[in-house]
Amino acid sequence: MSTASPKSGISRRRLLGVAGAGALTAGVGVGGFKLTTADAGKSEAGDPSYDFYGTHQAGIVTPAQDRLHFASFDVITDSREDLVALLQAWTQAAAEMTAGTPVGGEEAARSYDSPPADTGEALGLNASGLTLTFGFGPTLFEKGGQDRFGLKERQPKALRELPHFPADNLDPARSNGDLCVQACAHDPQVAVHAIRNLARLGFGTVSMRWAQLGFGRTSSTTTSQSTPRNLLGFKDGTANVKAEETDDLDSFVWVGEDDDPRATWLSGGSYLVARRINMHIETWDRTSLREQENLVGRDRPEGAPLSGGTEFTEPDFDLQGSDGPLMAVDSHVRLAHPSTNNGTRLFRRGYNFTDGSDALGRLDAGLFFIAFVRDPDTHYIPMQNQLSSQDGLMEYLQHTGSGLFAVPPGIAEGSWIGEALFA
Amino acid sequence: MSTASPKSGISRRRLLGVAGAGALTAGVGVGGFKLTTADAGKSEAGDPSYDFYGTHQAGIVTPAQDRLHFASFDVITDSREDLVALLQAWTQAAAEMTAGTPVGGEEAARSYDSPPADTGEALGLNASGLTLTFGFGPTLFEKGGQDRFGLKERQPKALRELPHFPADNLDPARSNGDLCVQACAHDPQVAVHAIRNLARLGFGTVSMRWAQLGFGRTSSTTTSQSTPRNLLGFKDGTANVKAEETDDLDSFVWVGEDDDPRATWLSGGSYLVARRINMHIETWDRTSLREQENLVGRDRPEGAPLSGGTEFTEPDFDLQGSDGPLMAVDSHVRLAHPSTNNGTRLFRRGYNFTDGSDALGRLDAGLFFIAFVRDPDTHYIPMQNQLSSQDGLMEYLQHTGSGLFAVPPGIAEGSWIGEALFA
Repeated sequence: MSTASPKSGISRRRLLGVAGAGALTAGVGVGGFKLTTADAGKSEAGDPSYDFYGTHQAGIVTPAQDRLHFASFDVITDSREDLVALLQAWTQAAAEMTAGTPVGGEEAARSYDSPPADTGEALGLNASGLTLTFGFGPTLFEKGGQDRFGLKERQPKALRELPHFPADNLDPARSNGDLCVQACAHDPQVAVHAIRNLARLGFGTVSMRWAQLGFGRTSSTTTSQSTPRNLLGFKDGTANVKAEETDDLDSFVWVGEDDDPRATWLSGGSYLVARRINMHIETWDRTSLREQENLVGRDRPEGAPLSGGTEFTEPDFDLQGSDGPLMAVDSHVRLAHPSTNNGTRLFRRGYNFTDGSDALGRLDAGLFFIAFVRDPDTHYIPMQNQLSSQDGLMEYLQHTGSGLFAVPPGIAEGSWIGEALFA
Repeated sequence: MSTASPKSGISRRRLLGVAGAGALTAGVGVGGFKLTTADAGKSEAGDPSYDFYGTHQAGIVTPAQDRLHFASFDVITDSREDLVALLQAWTQAAAEMTAGTPVGGEEAARSYDSPPADTGEALGLNASGLTLTFGFGPTLFEKGGQDRFGLKERQPKALRELPHFPADNLDPARSNGDLCVQACAHDPQVAVHAIRNLARLGFGTVSMRWAQLGFGRTSSTTTSQSTPRNLLGFKDGTANVKAEETDDLDSFVWVGEDDDPRATWLSGGSYLVARRINMHIETWDRTSLREQENLVGRDRPEGAPLSGGTEFTEPDFDLQGSDGPLMAVDSHVRLAHPSTNNGTRLFRRGYNFTDGSDALGRLDAGLFFIAFVRDPDTHYIPMQNQLSSQDGLMEYLQHTGSGLFAVPPGIAEGSWIGEALFA
């Protein structure tokens, strides 16, 4: 699996000496004094890079990076050829950027008479653990009854707009899309740089539909990571499936070979569920800590279930307190637990976001939820129906954006994103 | 000066053991198994904390942290008493949060029957170099002809709405305000937590007017920091006044004792200029590297002036190339240079931002410019008039937000933000 072995990245900085020298001779034309261009950029110590190529796409079970830039695009051409060319160009650029090298490599940085192949704001930064994960929305296959790119017969049966859930208040301008790219990195500048350069390569072929910056991870994807906190102030993702639980990944994350005869190209891939979940921060902040903990089902300091133990102790839903079960019947933990969801476990990599304040001065903030599921019909929709109708937390939440994307399997070197779909 | 000596912070994590135990006895009421609550949070190594109290406010010459959350508030009460009470509450909360401790301290975390004094999402994180810098807008002194809080006679003469500059396209919803808070930290979750908790303390007294998240610093404020890049892909802030240049800080940043007889309370403070500068990213990205460098006046790889040398070499504006001066007459570096601005040097701490995409699919991104100046009439407005009318870069920029705030001097322990103004 590509994502299991971080390696020390090739730094963009190492390339700068050459680019700088090229700049000197090709560009300014004044000689001799600019040849030592060691950049005093940020330290490269400790930041891994992840292979773009592999069995599965990186950015799924990869240890959750700190920052996110997620973008959804609409395809604005009717040309299948142009779409394929973009996916090929994206493949190459993604491989370069995740390795910490500029788009187009060193050569392109020397061309002074054309726009630079790389936009430059990540020069001197290292790979910062960047991963780029690509997905296809249902409208890529069919839109308004049109089989736009000859892909309709290969549309996965589960790939359709998510149903309306009880508490949804979706903004169409923050929902859906033909293509998505999830950029995760430890340095947000690296994630933003990646999305910007992909958008730029797509000029004339795609248009950015919406994007979301996430400033703090709210999931651990490996057992070696500590559990972060969401903007409710509680640890989030304690019960997340972890990368080490490979049996559960096969059961709940990776699409199997025989899952969908129409879409064998998706085998080894997954479905990406994106939900922009606004929190009614101000209301939550006026709720007693006792009430908050009862709604979540965990204590705030440690994240232990209210039935006792420590963070990773299994909750005891039968244990009674003086006022009924210690794990309230409408608590989030109970309603999201495998025991009330036909054994389903969820694999998430969500991010906290804030986008300023709304017209009433309230924080526009919450959780940008991302889950990777083997089958949304089994592993997401039933759980979300249950949560949105029964979860006591829903009083403080509102889903304002939504998307479902089919995430093809990993790309083999020499291949390109979705090649099997277009084959 | 408070900001010169980072010290190892008291971690919120250390407090969690106590809070956890309190939770156990006061809250859940099931005994004995939750007393060891060592949190597996992020490492505390390497992240300093800065004293909130000092001669000058922290967050000005403090080494520029990586992330920003900036907020502007409107005061929604007519009560001077309530306003003062808020400034006092903000003082205490700011001192706590910048030390890495929860708002309200440990005791408040044990109160289970009331809303928690701290919203919790920074529990387990350390101070992360958090600084909180407070400012007063002109409308705090007078609005619609009203002397709202009896402060009008003390309004600094330079504290008024910035004039309209040629390329301005300001959004009133992203401009001005009665109060501002600049939160800078290495971890954005810590900065967001700080603004959220200040907003919460202000409920009923202030309303958030606008806010801006900045994901990457674009200035160095000390000689020990490397120069970061803005979203044009170029190093930004090479010529910034640095914390070590104390004579220039006195000349260009700190308000002097005799600067303004009406506003002696501002002595030792500064003026904060905030400008949200959108970049026409897509147009810039289609410009040749040669043209980009000529517009900036520096090469992209290293940031050296086009007249030669390395990054910190002084530009030679007279040096001729084959097509005229190597430093173009409309280059940004030339027009912002002290030699064309009556000797003025600017002290900035700006941040890159992106707020998704606009209705046309273009990135809503750019630079959130922050400068601290001794006198905006001398040290900012003339320079910005020159830049906005002559700078070749302006073709790629649009100012979409603006604010000017008077930043009182540092707060002495036992005092509170702006006490001298209200005395």
